[in-house]
Amino acid sequence: MTQRPLILVTNDDGINAPGIRTLIEIMNDIGDVVVVAPNSPQSGMGHAITIDSTLFVERIVVDNEKQLEYSCSGTPADCVKLGIREVLNRRPDLCVSGINHGSNSSINVIYSGTMSAAIEAGIEGIPSIGFSLLNYKWNANFSATKSYVKTIAKMVLKHGLPNGIVLNVNIPDLSKKDIKGIKICRQAKANWVEEFDKRKNPQGKDYYWLTGKFVNLDNGEDTDEWALENGYVSVVPIQFDLTAHHYIQNLNSWNLND
Amino acid sequence: MTQRPLILVTNDDGINAPGIRTLIEIMNDIGDVVVVAPNSPQSGMGHAITIDSTLFVERIVVDNEKQLEYSCSGTPADCVKLGIREVLNRRPDLCVSGINHGSNSSINVIYSGTMSAAIEAGIEGIPSIGFSLLNYKWNANFSATKSYVKTIAKMVLKHGLPNGIVLNVNIPDLSKKDIKGIKICRQAKANWVEEFDKRKNPQGKDYYWLTGKFVNLDNGEDTDEWALENGYVSVVPIQFDLTAHHYIQNLNSWNLND
Repeated sequence: MTQRPLILVTNDDGINAPGIRTLIEIMNDIGDVVVVAPNSPQSGMGHAITIDSTLFVERIVVDNEKQLEYSCSGTPADCVKLGIREVLNRRPDLCVSGINHGSNSSINVIYSGTMSAAIEAGIEGIPSIGFSLLNYKWNANFSATKSYVKTIAKMVLKHGLPNGIVLNVNIPDLSKKDIKGIKICRQAKANWVEEFDKRKNPQGKDYYWLTGKFVNLDNGEDTDEWALENGYVSVVPIQFDLTAHHYIQNLNSWNLND
Repeated sequence: MTQRPLILVTNDDGINAPGIRTLIEIMNDIGDVVVVAPNSPQSGMGHAITIDSTLFVERIVVDNEKQLEYSCSGTPADCVKLGIREVLNRRPDLCVSGINHGSNSSINVIYSGTMSAAIEAGIEGIPSIGFSLLNYKWNANFSATKSYVKTIAKMVLKHGLPNGIVLNVNIPDLSKKDIKGIKICRQAKANWVEEFDKRKNPQGKDYYWLTGKFVNLDNGEDTDEWALENGYVSVVPIQFDLTAHHYIQNLNSWNLND
């Protein structure tokens, strides 16, 4: 009998979010699950880590399932660091983050706490996947995500992932019959056009709410945005070597040392 | 007479940090400077943005120089978004972030608020550079950085940067005569081995401080770590298309749709 895989589960919406509860349920079918997740929502935290403050980790029981669960006062990246170093008694075989309430496709990957947790595990050399559903509501319906999440997690356990690569998986907000399948994609070129909502507080001081409109600038049919708009689950392999290797040669022609 | 370039200056150590004061002084020699920077230190904030809270921006006068300065309640990425949309009356020609108190070389780029501000400007299509000095102390000596920061900023204004690329510049903590020059590099493969310092609070509850040891795993002589250890200023072109393009072909052999 082979050992069941050890799976570290985290997210950025907080340990009580329906998205992570769904992810835990799916992972319980595949391996032994340990959850280390933020005790409060951490969306938009990017790859923040806690260096100027203390971190608390608390064993909790959320449901009557078999997984071990720990609630953490830190960011998603903190949860992964603490999970690996302090909570787990052996190296996990897989780290999964999510299922995020809302898209982390294209440029959103940069702002995403969900993906920062997956990247943190990837830096530690652990095969790792971030999952997101394109519905930011708390009561989003995650039922159609289950078979895709399971398939992709099992494939990663089977094939592994090379050092330096993690997967960014986004799932369209459709019923199961309307999802056409899984597509391997590249990150679309897209950005947010911010529109700050400027208001005055009761003391007459200006303040702002950050709002914005998402703009896809990329007409390619090999992007995550194209896949999602056309009813596919998108899988983008991402890397944390940010070097633009192709531009090194060009920069070397600038004669910076003259 | 040609128009002087408009330069947006920000950082993650806060608007009063000596590093940004040095950067402002250098940029005043090159162009018209507008500062939009956090009102408090934001180190380790990664690419966090403020979506669940309000943002305040306040005109301040720090010194008697000619730049306009705005102190912002948000993260470095917020500062850039607000600077571009609400503070500046035209698009800046250059965005510079820093000079960070401490290294943002190799994997540190992922956690860096300094670099997240530079990346945010890059997403907006603005030529952009993050500068860091390898000394995290508040009273670090920035005098040797000046000529390098000026040279690199002027070169970026002259040559521009292609869409999707920003520069990550790190400067060794050496006197000017000991710095050997500028090297174009790739990001070294390195990571932090966390060592959580576990303590008990006065109520007997466990808590942690995140500490760790930096480990360079990369023996290459073309990396930022090599350059810095050998007395060079490192310049790494970085990109925010995180797609691991070379791995797409491999993932397409997994038959995820069977």
